[in-house]
Amino acid sequence: MTNFRNQVKNYFKSLQSEICKKLSQTDSKSKFSRDKWKKQQGGGGITRVMLNGNVIEKGGVNFSAVSGKLPERIAKDFNVPQINYFATGISIVIHPFHPFVPIIHANLRYFELENGSSWFGGGMDLTPVYINVTEVKNFHLGLKKICDTFNKKFYPEFKRSADRYFFIPHRKEKRGAGGIFFDKLGSKHAGSAQEFYPFIKGIGNYFLPAYLPLISANRYKKFNEKHKEFQLFRRGRYVEFNLVYDLGTKFGLETAGRAESILMSLPPLVKWTYDFIPEKDSEEERTMKFLRKK
Amino acid sequence: MTNFRNQVKNYFKSLQSEICKKLSQTDSKSKFSRDKWKKQQGGGGITRVMLNGNVIEKGGVNFSAVSGKLPERIAKDFNVPQINYFATGISIVIHPFHPFVPIIHANLRYFELENGSSWFGGGMDLTPVYINVTEVKNFHLGLKKICDTFNKKFYPEFKRSADRYFFIPHRKEKRGAGGIFFDKLGSKHAGSAQEFYPFIKGIGNYFLPAYLPLISANRYKKFNEKHKEFQLFRRGRYVEFNLVYDLGTKFGLETAGRAESILMSLPPLVKWTYDFIPEKDSEEERTMKFLRKK
Repeated sequence: MTNFRNQVKNYFKSLQSEICKKLSQTDSKSKFSRDKWKKQQGGGGITRVMLNGNVIEKGGVNFSAVSGKLPERIAKDFNVPQINYFATGISIVIHPFHPFVPIIHANLRYFELENGSSWFGGGMDLTPVYINVTEVKNFHLGLKKICDTFNKKFYPEFKRSADRYFFIPHRKEKRGAGGIFFDKLGSKHAGSAQEFYPFIKGIGNYFLPAYLPLISANRYKKFNEKHKEFQLFRRGRYVEFNLVYDLGTKFGLETAGRAESILMSLPPLVKWTYDFIPEKDSEEERTMKFLRKK
Repeated sequence: MTNFRNQVKNYFKSLQSEICKKLSQTDSKSKFSRDKWKKQQGGGGITRVMLNGNVIEKGGVNFSAVSGKLPERIAKDFNVPQINYFATGISIVIHPFHPFVPIIHANLRYFELENGSSWFGGGMDLTPVYINVTEVKNFHLGLKKICDTFNKKFYPEFKRSADRYFFIPHRKEKRGAGGIFFDKLGSKHAGSAQEFYPFIKGIGNYFLPAYLPLISANRYKKFNEKHKEFQLFRRGRYVEFNLVYDLGTKFGLETAGRAESILMSLPPLVKWTYDFIPEKDSEEERTMKFLRKK
């Protein structure tokens, strides 16, 4: 198990390096800072953040590998006693400056319990400020291709989970254009996560091919004040989702994780107006209709 | 009971009018809009919002009087079956444009259950961007004077509750300079809230005398980009508190209240930077130290 654990950890770590390197090259103005942190109970992480780039206004690529005794509430959720755990993961949120470059989020994690059970969880999803139907389709098609290589049931199931998860009940709106979301791949018996490792790598390796084209296709497009305003408004929804509903954020804040690393997912600049109603037949209205569609 | 209920409701309603009128006069540029809304189960409210004033960048003064059957979770909290309730309240959040004019929040509410119990809850607290010790002292002194008229135990007890409540655990920071916070004044027997009504009116009537001087003392002070940046940063903490911890917000979002009315408390423009560390011996550092003091 220790061997597999290290394999996964090293993969996440090298994925972090690779993603930061390529995004820095693409941005060409700003670079990712690097904060190493340690957890009292055991393990630690590397938080990498880019601010005020050409393309990326704020981007975070977190890696962590921690261990310890399960917190009481989590142990209850898992239906086990407070035994030891090991968890490693990579978590990515990119907030671009340009309103036509979508926000992207991805997260892959591996969990191991002292009792021998182990599993992967994670996903990848897109939150465009303006919905571009072709781009959304291509993003999903890419995810579907990877999923289908492993199991034809994965894509429809994991897409449905993402749709259920990335939803803001108090707004009756989707957070964005969805993607895939999965948890507990493995978990039944000791070492049961291992068969899903190639799938996890498939998803991890898809991040750059999925996102770089979305940057290059949109970064030089003209935009005006109205587009920028709508971006700041849409980012407000992102904050509402992350602070009110996101389980990863909740887990992090409740287990007294490093607040700055957990909340690096929050957008750099956000606007809350009152009772925003988009103009009739505007691009903004089309996007809001898409987000409210069942 | 119906008679008392109407008295309270009419007081909150007239307090809303009075506060909106005086704040509009003070602002002299913008006015409060007025949205009447109805709740399916019974009752409704008036949401009044000011945007982009001279002084007030975003301000909300909400009044509501609603009734219905208790939602399951709330009934459990109250330890009663799902009986009928009546609730009326006023809720105020003012986000000034000027970084030296503090954010203020006040909330007064009256609750009545079918089983005859009734109580008041609420409070008032200040969230300065920069802590001005004299202003904070005066604000508290005013609250103490009103509390002392009714019961010498009120101020110390309600101040302690505010300190406990307006705290952001994941940041280990106070939200601001505190104030008073109280709940379940009454509740023991039918009509038991009535003896606290004069106290509630005392607090309600203190809002304008507490806040108008803070506006006039600060609105013309010079400020620079750094002050403004710090304001947008501090507003981020306000959002974190309201979306992660505030019980009123949680209650509202969970009972499917009107999201725009509940979230009018969120600041107009907010910035999340990464790992902000104030300059040594700066005003920003002094404020952060105050907020982290136990």
